[in-house]
Amino acid sequence: MQTIGHLINGERVAEDTRTQEVINPSTNQLEARVCLASKATVETAIAAAEAAYPAWRAVPPIKRARIMFRLKDLLEQNANKICHLLTCEHGKVLNDAMGELQRGIENVEYVCSLPELLKGEHCRDVGPAIDSWSEFQPLGVCAGITPFNFPAMVPLWMWPMAVACGNTFVLKPSERDPSAALFIAQLGLEAGIPAGVLNVVNGDKEAVDTLLTDPRVQAVSFVGSTPVAKYIYATGCAAGKRVQAFGGAKNHALIMPDADLDNAASALMGAAYGSCGERCMAISVAVVVGEQAADALIDKLKTQIATLKVGDGRDTANDMGPLISSAHLEKVTGYVTRGVEEGAELVVDGRGLVVDGFEQGNYLGASLFDRVKPGMAIHADEIFGPVLCVMRVDTMEQAMEIINNHEYGNGTCIFTRDGEAARYFADNIKVGMVGINVPLPVPVAYHSFGGWKQSLFGDLHAYGPDSVRFYTKRKTITQRWPASDVREGAQFAFPSNR
Amino acid sequence: MQTIGHLINGERVAEDTRTQEVINPSTNQLEARVCLASKATVETAIAAAEAAYPAWRAVPPIKRARIMFRLKDLLEQNANKICHLLTCEHGKVLNDAMGELQRGIENVEYVCSLPELLKGEHCRDVGPAIDSWSEFQPLGVCAGITPFNFPAMVPLWMWPMAVACGNTFVLKPSERDPSAALFIAQLGLEAGIPAGVLNVVNGDKEAVDTLLTDPRVQAVSFVGSTPVAKYIYATGCAAGKRVQAFGGAKNHALIMPDADLDNAASALMGAAYGSCGERCMAISVAVVVGEQAADALIDKLKTQIATLKVGDGRDTANDMGPLISSAHLEKVTGYVTRGVEEGAELVVDGRGLVVDGFEQGNYLGASLFDRVKPGMAIHADEIFGPVLCVMRVDTMEQAMEIINNHEYGNGTCIFTRDGEAARYFADNIKVGMVGINVPLPVPVAYHSFGGWKQSLFGDLHAYGPDSVRFYTKRKTITQRWPASDVREGAQFAFPSNR
Amino acid sequence: MQTIGHLINGERVAEDTRTQEVINPSTNQLEARVCLASKATVETAIAAAEAAYPAWRAVPPIKRARIMFRLKDLLEQNANKICHLLTCEHGKVLNDAMGELQRGIENVEYVCSLPELLKGEHCRDVGPAIDSWSEFQPLGVCAGITPFNFPAMVPLWMWPMAVACGNTFVLKPSERDPSAALFIAQLGLEAGIPAGVLNVVNGDKEAVDTLLTDPRVQAVSFVGSTPVAKYIYATGCAAGKRVQAFGGAKNHALIMPDADLDNAASALMGAAYGSCGERCMAISVAVVVGEQAADALIDKLKTQIATLKVGDGRDTANDMGPLISSAHLEKVTGYVTRGVEEGAELVVDGRGLVVDGFEQGNYLGASLFDRVKPGMAIHADEIFGPVLCVMRVDTMEQAMEIINNHEYGNGTCIFTRDGEAARYFADNIKVGMVGINVPLPVPVAYHSFGGWKQSLFGDLHAYGPDSVRFYTKRKTITQRWPASDVREGAQFAFPSNR
Amino acid sequence: MQTIGHLINGERVAEDTRTQEVINPSTNQLEARVCLASKATVETAIAAAEAAYPAWRAVPPIKRARIMFRLKDLLEQNANKICHLLTCEHGKVLNDAMGELQRGIENVEYVCSLPELLKGEHCRDVGPAIDSWSEFQPLGVCAGITPFNFPAMVPLWMWPMAVACGNTFVLKPSERDPSAALFIAQLGLEAGIPAGVLNVVNGDKEAVDTLLTDPRVQAVSFVGSTPVAKYIYATGCAAGKRVQAFGGAKNHALIMPDADLDNAASALMGAAYGSCGERCMAISVAVVVGEQAADALIDKLKTQIATLKVGDGRDTANDMGPLISSAHLEKVTGYVTRGVEEGAELVVDGRGLVVDGFEQGNYLGASLFDRVKPGMAIHADEIFGPVLCVMRVDTMEQAMEIINNHEYGNGTCIFTRDGEAARYFADNIKVGMVGINVPLPVPVAYHSFGGWKQSLFGDLHAYGPDSVRFYTKRKTITQRWPASDVREGAQFAFPSNR
Repeated sequence: MQTIGHLINGERVAEDTRTQEVINPSTNQLEARVCLASKATVETAIAAAEAAYPAWRAVPPIKRARIMFRLKDLLEQNANKICHLLTCEHGKVLNDAMGELQRGIENVEYVCSLPELLKGEHCRDVGPAIDSWSEFQPLGVCAGITPFNFPAMVPLWMWPMAVACGNTFVLKPSERDPSAALFIAQLGLEAGIPAGVLNVVNGDKEAVDTLLTDPRVQAVSFVGSTPVAKYIYATGCAAGKRVQAFGGAKNHALIMPDADLDNAASALMGAAYGSCGERCMAISVAVVVGEQAADALIDKLKTQIATLKVGDGRDTANDMGPLISSAHLEKVTGYVTRGVEEGAELVVDGRGLVVDGFEQGNYLGASLFDRVKPGMAIHADEIFGPVLCVMRVDTMEQAMEIINNHEYGNGTCIFTRDGEAARYFADNIKVGMVGINVPLPVPVAYHSFGGWKQSLFGDLHAYGPDSVRFYTKRKTITQRWPASDVREGAQFAFPSNR
Repeated sequence: MQTIGHLINGERVAEDTRTQEVINPSTNQLEARVCLASKATVETAIAAAEAAYPAWRAVPPIKRARIMFRLKDLLEQNANKICHLLTCEHGKVLNDAMGELQRGIENVEYVCSLPELLKGEHCRDVGPAIDSWSEFQPLGVCAGITPFNFPAMVPLWMWPMAVACGNTFVLKPSERDPSAALFIAQLGLEAGIPAGVLNVVNGDKEAVDTLLTDPRVQAVSFVGSTPVAKYIYATGCAAGKRVQAFGGAKNHALIMPDADLDNAASALMGAAYGSCGERCMAISVAVVVGEQAADALIDKLKTQIATLKVGDGRDTANDMGPLISSAHLEKVTGYVTRGVEEGAELVVDGRGLVVDGFEQGNYLGASLFDRVKPGMAIHADEIFGPVLCVMRVDTMEQAMEIINNHEYGNGTCIFTRDGEAARYFADNIKVGMVGINVPLPVPVAYHSFGGWKQSLFGDLHAYGPDSVRFYTKRKTITQRWPASDVREGAQFAFPSNR
Repeated sequence: MQTIGHLINGERVAEDTRTQEVINPSTNQLEARVCLASKATVETAIAAAEAAYPAWRAVPPIKRARIMFRLKDLLEQNANKICHLLTCEHGKVLNDAMGELQRGIENVEYVCSLPELLKGEHCRDVGPAIDSWSEFQPLGVCAGITPFNFPAMVPLWMWPMAVACGNTFVLKPSERDPSAALFIAQLGLEAGIPAGVLNVVNGDKEAVDTLLTDPRVQAVSFVGSTPVAKYIYATGCAAGKRVQAFGGAKNHALIMPDADLDNAASALMGAAYGSCGERCMAISVAVVVGEQAADALIDKLKTQIATLKVGDGRDTANDMGPLISSAHLEKVTGYVTRGVEEGAELVVDGRGLVVDGFEQGNYLGASLFDRVKPGMAIHADEIFGPVLCVMRVDTMEQAMEIINNHEYGNGTCIFTRDGEAARYFADNIKVGMVGINVPLPVPVAYHSFGGWKQSLFGDLHAYGPDSVRFYTKRKTITQRWPASDVREGAQFAFPSNR
Repeated sequence: MQTIGHLINGERVAEDTRTQEVINPSTNQLEARVCLASKATVETAIAAAEAAYPAWRAVPPIKRARIMFRLKDLLEQNANKICHLLTCEHGKVLNDAMGELQRGIENVEYVCSLPELLKGEHCRDVGPAIDSWSEFQPLGVCAGITPFNFPAMVPLWMWPMAVACGNTFVLKPSERDPSAALFIAQLGLEAGIPAGVLNVVNGDKEAVDTLLTDPRVQAVSFVGSTPVAKYIYATGCAAGKRVQAFGGAKNHALIMPDADLDNAASALMGAAYGSCGERCMAISVAVVVGEQAADALIDKLKTQIATLKVGDGRDTANDMGPLISSAHLEKVTGYVTRGVEEGAELVVDGRGLVVDGFEQGNYLGASLFDRVKPGMAIHADEIFGPVLCVMRVDTMEQAMEIINNHEYGNGTCIFTRDGEAARYFADNIKVGMVGINVPLPVPVAYHSFGGWKQSLFGDLHAYGPDSVRFYTKRKTITQRWPASDVREGAQFAFPSNR
């Protein structure tokens, strides 16, 4: 039985007394045990990062960027191995794992633009013979705390940019599926990141709290659920740090009567049931304008659900794998039951699914509710499972009101052919990431990821341009040189360009 | 006796039961009474801002910018009146008040660039026939809490940009010298800002706490002392808001042996004693490399201090006015006493100064310490008075260590002719705003203001480019249009550009 | 009788022997005589600009920008006077003149963003302790040659940005309607532009050729017809200068069957007949997809043309004024005749219009052709008059082929409600400025103006961001400082970041 | 004997009737024969590029960028082979060849930032519900004409960016050393560039003229001598194209009395004699302020020249190889003779050098002149050989006057420790690329390369950010959507944001 430890100062260490089981969700069998770092272990990692910082900061940005070019190559060369780790520990099907990894690689590609991204602003003659410029200097030690649902991608949102900007890093991946993040971090070292610059600690709340309160940690990036995001934001900020904390979601698709319904249905299938709905950008609600469109959409979805293949992720014929844990299966199943109790119409019931050969797996079939109403728990809560709710409204304004009134504001999309409808929606919807006929509007790596309302605490989004700003601090320099023939008297007034 | 109220929804209101005295620091006579807003009053202002938001957000940015063009004109036309208010309530000399106001106007000028500043990023073909772009949309209701020492400038750092970006605003200026901020806000309305878009409430902790916790307020900007900044940051973030909180400072000048000492001495005079040292960018410590340079500098400073004119700010012959309050005078005087007790050499003692005709004023003469050491309270603490400490070191590295070890990291400067020394200093000093032969390196309005370490909590700096990002949230839109001949199957894998 | 001279080195001069008549096109009466500058006169202006350059270049950008703030105010205060000059010399109706001037003012507003626009790029550590940055420095003497159709706006595209960037300027406006440009230039001096920095010479080819070949002139901006643009580009470039030369146009509107035809018809009325069609962005061809839409559009246009008011521009009840000259009237009338000969269907014939009280004016009524075909001269040539050609096609692809095959590529627009059609059009049409339901897609002042194909020679567009780059040259500085303990051997290999 | 042909539409072709010898300059022996493309052959290449354009333009930018990631890998893997080709045909020593190639690779690395670089500007609400954005679309077929002295690097300045931006390309490398460019182009195809997108034609003036006049070619980039650059610029612009033409240089180093002379001497050795002085950024003049510094510098240079190793480039012990051709050797030798005749003091005479085993090679030893004066041909002309001229002046102003009065303005540098001297020099010197204690201030790949005055014709510099703008054209789209309840009348006035 493998014990998964930490990566500290370039070494694999596994000396903690507390461990936790890592379970294959397709079989519910034990895959490995993961160490849960004590406060002392985390402090060792922070100390390693602190010690590595001065030398790393002095490496020219282009040389730091070149390590990212090599990391991209290594990720591509090791893609199959990484995806296998993802499937065994998270359960998602291999093809989906490959999509996740590719998105992570795209973040690394963007980081290769570092010399362009780090450019500061220079002004000649802000006053007579006075120049001023701003540099974006690294922060020091940064930390990342990442969720179970994208074990490879979300860490790659964070540390490649942070490290390339000249920071050192301590990553705490999800303890449920830690292996991919750890393996990728080792590829980072192989690509040329010096020991101590990138560290990984596995752990639970003890590790998290250490990262949030240790004064050597300058910045914390977090992705997870909203209650934890709020805790991270409040705790890290109370300790004086900069924090960005990404929380939960309830993403609505708005289906207009003029939409291409075949496309919309196909798009919803993937967006609702892909990765078993365990994505913060999953579409879990379809708001349909008009009864006719709703009826047609329900029909198309039923037809497609009937052919959906659910099973072990290593079998590439499958579309959907198991949920992450038996406890989560129970929770999601409970929501299906509750939806029925609340009066929603359960069009397709995924409960009770048994997959041949994987009878112990955390399987739930795709589930579809119709006539869901605001106020029902299945609409209010983030279920994080393969449950799609259809809501019926008469007008676009009603649909937008439902979306705008929801506490979350991560992603949303509209299906329409009409330019005016799309523009009105995109402009006025209170959601940070908007798709127009694009069901999962995850921004590409050269834009930034972030929701609004209870989906994000902080001001700068993840990856892309915002992440450069998050992982650097501005230093502004104002310079003049004394000429030998210049002698000036004291100026008691506040200096300005009058 | 005038009662200073609030500006809410375009109306002046003054109905609070609690008030506080506004005192002229040059005479210690009562100038006016200022209302201290109750929670209910602040909530009225927030409600007005919330109500005004949707219509204001829909005004095209160029039209919002044009109001700022008019505001610039109005500020220039009313400069004398504003400066008179500044001098009467804060005490700074008129010429210094004019410098402050001009810096504020420069911020307004920068806001006139709004259409350029709000530009989002657009990408054609992020995938086949898929476009993506990011917009920077306003937040909603924003709040600003500003200090007594720059009653005109600091509010102008905040609300013109916030309002131009499409937000509505509630400003709580310092209750000690509230008139300038209130008058300028009225000029904003005169320039065309609609009622409710910009509101001013005067008050104390009750008002502050209401702004920090009301869920309708999306963002808080604060400038003040570090303990309060920490409280603001922790409290506002715990309420889920974005917060930038600017705190205290202890700014060092490093004097190299090759510096032009005449220039350096003149620069220090203005930077240490201008505005009575009540500036977060004031130089309060001069670290001199080499005994010879230190002796020469002390001589030059003594000579200049001897001719420094201290007196009522309305007399334009004066260089320096009174401290803000008798309590503050007592505190600063106490530091001078303590410095002597701690063993520093008091070269010039400003205590006991009496200004003819203003015998009740809070006057303290320029004070100069030599041979100050780390560990003394006069070095550790922000005194915020006309007290300059000279420290003597043997090497540049020792000087930089003193600066880097200090808890504050707002501003600093170096005096030298040597390119290498200047570049090494600017690169390695752990301070956010750096001057090279520039004693007060306040960034110009088209850069951004912010310190490091305990001088700033948050990630985005004040005014300039960072303030655009602070007062907007990113919305990223990904768009494709269905062609009639396209029919696609569901994609269960995570979408990426493979 | 007024003689219109030049503005050289801050003085009005009028000493040339050659002059030309300035005619009011509404009456064909002589308004004034304009001097035609000799080579020597132009060289005097160039010499003044050359002499003024070093001092002007040294003025900090924020101070140059502030002159533009004042210019904006002066333009607004003198708007009525300027528009009166425009109407009397050019003929356009006052309301249209106000639109032109406002666009010019918007360019000045954009120039007020100068400190932001001039920011260079700064990179710390391009190698170990090596920094590099780029500045955008002024060129020296620049020249502008502007057309008769926008006597106020096009000069304001050029010199405010050129001058604000630190250049000096010689403007040669159209000799047909020179007064507005001259008056506005004087406002520039009144706003604070020093003598010699901005000069105006009136003239013809002799003046143009002097500007194109004098080695002191660094850059030339031109707007006019394509044959002249080609000459300007070839001649100026052969003299080693940077040149941007904007030429003619033939702008098509594509009307899709799903378009809002009422809106489209109204939009076409203004875009085709506004300013008598004498705009390089005028729509002169409407390509309609489908016979039904074409029939309906023709009907709507006929109805609206019937109510179009043509007459003297000073009467604000009028929609359209006279053509610029009797020669041009004859030319445009000839095209109408030729269109009939070529077989197009003349739905509305504007020939023979007589305006009461202005019987001598160069009046032509709005003219409308249907069933125009490629190959006809009325489709191939830029007519620059109130003649709208309707072409009928069966498919969007046919329409786009007509547009893409035309030699000009200035502006175009599509009328549709369909997102896919609009995006496909915008992406694939070979035209530089594209409107989607916007008939005159003149970019706003914070974007840049420029066509493709024979409509623009050069690489940088007019006004907006491109104009900053056109009026500045890049200087890139790479800096390291020798430390006293560093001694290095010679490097014979090409330096790189290996 | 190898015949070097062309690379057209993915195929190697070699069918031209005219050929030219490719000579190894170290031995003067025939290495190969290179085909000289006829007009018809070049037109075939242009036609291939034209045909490949539509499909290539439609490939998403991220996918085009990924080909550049692969190209970087291939260039690194084939570095030794490429450098061998460079040394055998050009003569430069292997280590220098590696430096050249590395700079080329750095350009490819920058091109990998393409998605960031291509971002357009997006503005919401330029008017009510009107959006506008600018895209940077490819031009079509572009051409590059490159010089003999950097056979690998200069082509890599051009086509990777041009091709990545979506253009197709025809490269005409120098016919004297064509193999490296051809080989690298094949690596481009191997990396994934489709056939026809990148073509190479070898040739002489016939090929050049075809590229300059064929209407299908949209843009031409050229690097070479100033007379040819002027011809290219005038001819290409007369044909209506956008052209950037980089010409010759005479780069001065200014040595201040306070400079670190050991560093300066070492720096000059490499900058003057590296690559035999055949670099457009070579330092060929050292202007020394003060007799004392001049004497000391001459001494140090003499000492270092005495140890300089000249010989065959394949021997890595050598510092300097042969000149490109016997004709060029004769020309450079003639300048040495002429310098003596003109009265300059020939401190070191490199004439008559014979290299053992390479007696037929084009070898000339390092030559050093002292007391060179303005007006001498060795100062006025670009010699392009290992000849360094020292000029003695009394003041910095005299030195800057010499530099500013020279017709070329490519590169320059100053050696000093003084911040004020460096800043004054960098600000006021009329040269495009400035080094401060950096002898060869070739901008890094993420800045752009370009001189001033007769060193560059055109407005946009090579590689870096400017090259993105050069290889794309701006398209600005203005969009509104008709709402069903909106009906508007015709607007005859020019649309503006009043």
